[in-house]
Amino acid sequence: MDNVKALFKPRSVAVIGASGKPGKIGYAIMKNLIEYGYEGKIYAVNIKGGEIEISGRKFQVYKSILDVPDEVEMAVIVVPAKFVPQVVEECGKKGVKALPIISSGFGELGEEGKKVEEALVETAHKYGMRILGPNIFGVVYTPTRLNATFGPTDVLPGKLALVSQSGALGIALMGWTILEKVGLSALVSIGNKSDLDDADMLDYFENDENTGAILIYMEGVKDGRKFMETARRVSMKKPIIIIKAGRSERGAKAAASHTGSLAGADSIYSAAFKQSGVLRALTIGEAFDWARTLSNLPEAEGKNVVILTNGGGIGVMATDAAEEEGLYLYDNLEELKVFANHMPPFGSYKNPVDLTGMADAKAYEGAVRDALANPNMHAIAVLYCQTAVLDPRDLADIVIREYEASGKKKPIVVAIVGGIEAKEAIDVLNEKGIPAYPEPERAIKSLAALYKWSNWKKSKRV
Amino acid sequence: MDNVKALFKPRSVAVIGASGKPGKIGYAIMKNLIEYGYEGKIYAVNIKGGEIEISGRKFQVYKSILDVPDEVEMAVIVVPAKFVPQVVEECGKKGVKALPIISSGFGELGEEGKKVEEALVETAHKYGMRILGPNIFGVVYTPTRLNATFGPTDVLPGKLALVSQSGALGIALMGWTILEKVGLSALVSIGNKSDLDDADMLDYFENDENTGAILIYMEGVKDGRKFMETARRVSMKKPIIIIKAGRSERGAKAAASHTGSLAGADSIYSAAFKQSGVLRALTIGEAFDWARTLSNLPEAEGKNVVILTNGGGIGVMATDAAEEEGLYLYDNLEELKVFANHMPPFGSYKNPVDLTGMADAKAYEGAVRDALANPNMHAIAVLYCQTAVLDPRDLADIVIREYEASGKKKPIVVAIVGGIEAKEAIDVLNEKGIPAYPEPERAIKSLAALYKWSNWKKSKRV
Repeated sequence: MDNVKALFKPRSVAVIGASGKPGKIGYAIMKNLIEYGYEGKIYAVNIKGGEIEISGRKFQVYKSILDVPDEVEMAVIVVPAKFVPQVVEECGKKGVKALPIISSGFGELGEEGKKVEEALVETAHKYGMRILGPNIFGVVYTPTRLNATFGPTDVLPGKLALVSQSGALGIALMGWTILEKVGLSALVSIGNKSDLDDADMLDYFENDENTGAILIYMEGVKDGRKFMETARRVSMKKPIIIIKAGRSERGAKAAASHTGSLAGADSIYSAAFKQSGVLRALTIGEAFDWARTLSNLPEAEGKNVVILTNGGGIGVMATDAAEEEGLYLYDNLEELKVFANHMPPFGSYKNPVDLTGMADAKAYEGAVRDALANPNMHAIAVLYCQTAVLDPRDLADIVIREYEASGKKKPIVVAIVGGIEAKEAIDVLNEKGIPAYPEPERAIKSLAALYKWSNWKKSKRV
Repeated sequence: MDNVKALFKPRSVAVIGASGKPGKIGYAIMKNLIEYGYEGKIYAVNIKGGEIEISGRKFQVYKSILDVPDEVEMAVIVVPAKFVPQVVEECGKKGVKALPIISSGFGELGEEGKKVEEALVETAHKYGMRILGPNIFGVVYTPTRLNATFGPTDVLPGKLALVSQSGALGIALMGWTILEKVGLSALVSIGNKSDLDDADMLDYFENDENTGAILIYMEGVKDGRKFMETARRVSMKKPIIIIKAGRSERGAKAAASHTGSLAGADSIYSAAFKQSGVLRALTIGEAFDWARTLSNLPEAEGKNVVILTNGGGIGVMATDAAEEEGLYLYDNLEELKVFANHMPPFGSYKNPVDLTGMADAKAYEGAVRDALANPNMHAIAVLYCQTAVLDPRDLADIVIREYEASGKKKPIVVAIVGGIEAKEAIDVLNEKGIPAYPEPERAIKSLAALYKWSNWKKSKRV
């Protein structure tokens, strides 16, 4: 069972069905392995043999994995379905540990395919191997620079483990994380879940030192009890966010016809998620918003939230969101008074702290530093409405510098409303692991998700 | 009163307080007027006289507007507050029609400033002039290529009129519209509303042939009755979206301390908005999402919505959103059967129509065309999850082509989930006035906003 590790940290990888022809999946996976910088050994296997060149690197093509002269820990299988059983058998003989099976044409086609899957798993287990899939687009683990997918290449490293049941949506989300600067530790396409399933992934990421939070796109689970028990245990350690469509009656029906999973059971999922500490996101955007905060930030040591803003309007918007989400805005005026040092006389140090439209680099620097330093201020939301006084990119630098200097001990979220410079500032912050959003409410709701998870844990500890 | 027109379609503009020095507001406004391509005459006025050069164009600087040899329809005032009364008087003598007063230092400082404002308005009205502001960042009207603001230059032309009470947030939103490809007909900073207010803007845009919808960021209204009566009348013709922060108790308190407006009256606003057909958006993102659809699309001729998708998952998400928003998914299978022509046998023509992950350009082209052609399908949501089969940018081209060929008679919204190519496709669609979003729910909710407005109108017509 420990072989799951070989999915993420294999010392060597073979691509069975490797190809030198652009457009082929066996080419795309080789290319991603090479170009994303995987440092272990890569072997090309294809019944055709010969030699191929990919991204300037030449590979001898072994006709069988049994011909590879060294140890192979992971074998990515992309051969047509009918050849997969034999290939799995050979992998077993070779001593491979983990088998992501990209090939489709199994359980998703019906009962017969399911039986073939079962046989594959039986063979694999006989040799102690674990199967991921079949019917997947692959696996990514950024700490080992492993990109064994046929999706985009340049996944941004970070602390979120992303697991997708849907292949199509999974690849689309992979692109989304790159576009939106969501840093990933891992990306796993679990497809038909013939062997490894969501619960196994939770098991692994629970103890993965590179993962801070887990986000699952789920269409259904096979073994609900196993999943929920695992989720409940893992939630005590790391936050789990789940997107599961099919909330409405018609949505559930559509889901049933799409996945063959049981319709009408959505309320059961909801209740079970809640009990297990799982945060259920209703949209993709919400899920990634929360994930930015949950994967990167420490928990708050108390309930006192401080909002710093240069715009009255966005301060009010953030306050509305905070109240609706049940966040507590710190209101000890004696302590908040410290912010009066960083604003003109017509500013307001009542929380939300309005540094006014005149707030410049110095004002934000001072206010952010004071908020980070005060032990009674447990979480901070920095809001900025783009003005001519302070370039948003400079604000980003200030927040990054102050947060790093403070030792990153409390949660801080940022919202910057504005144009292209604001977007750049948001990207820089996100790349540095400081969750930043283009709207105040999204920052506040993400902070609230962190509090919800924390509070659930506390409720279980008593 | 007809002089409001001169704010948007002036035949000539003077900048009083024009400057040749970068960094000055009087420079930024001249520069935007020139670089955005305003084709009327531009005059520079500054007590210092002389000559200035901006963006390669030389301007004689008149010491007073009275020295300008031609007619001036609009004068943008950027001189310090203490000189404004005299300048307004001179503008009156000159026969100017519209006066955006950028200068601050009036009513926002307190009672004394308010009195000065009142005197300014009295002077203006004596000469038949209308004042916008003071304490504003200016005005944009894209059909006349007029950008008389000190905000960003390249506003994207479109059909949304955007009105902001907050200057700081207004400029930030101006940048946002550029970044997010929201096309504007007009952008108005109304500041202190000493003369022209939100209701006057509604009056104007009601009959403006270039405006399809109006979006107002509001902190409070002075004359609630006037505003609501106007909004109710205008809503019968064009949709109005309002963002008004201060929903929660603490938010309302923060708003009160920020704007001096009455706290606790939020539920009254909500009720009045509803009665007036105004769509209240809770966040900036939601407001612009709706605005894309409401400003660009015709109303649906009936309730039947059809969802086309290549991904089961996003189809289910969209269905959930549709049900929650009260949209009706067309379910006449006899008619929906036409989509079977554009999918493999394992697709589903039940609504949401699942063209499957194999859907290519031909499949989408056929399905979109059939949906547009069928008179029983009243509104269409096209969803696409980025795959290797079809470049999202090609999908965008298909939708643009088919929609234009159909005569744009029914509403169509698009959602594309994916990476950088998806983002580019979304931008292209939005630039062409076809509302496109990166998430299925946002497309569906925007379509629902269009239906809400339509249904409100219908309820008033009986």
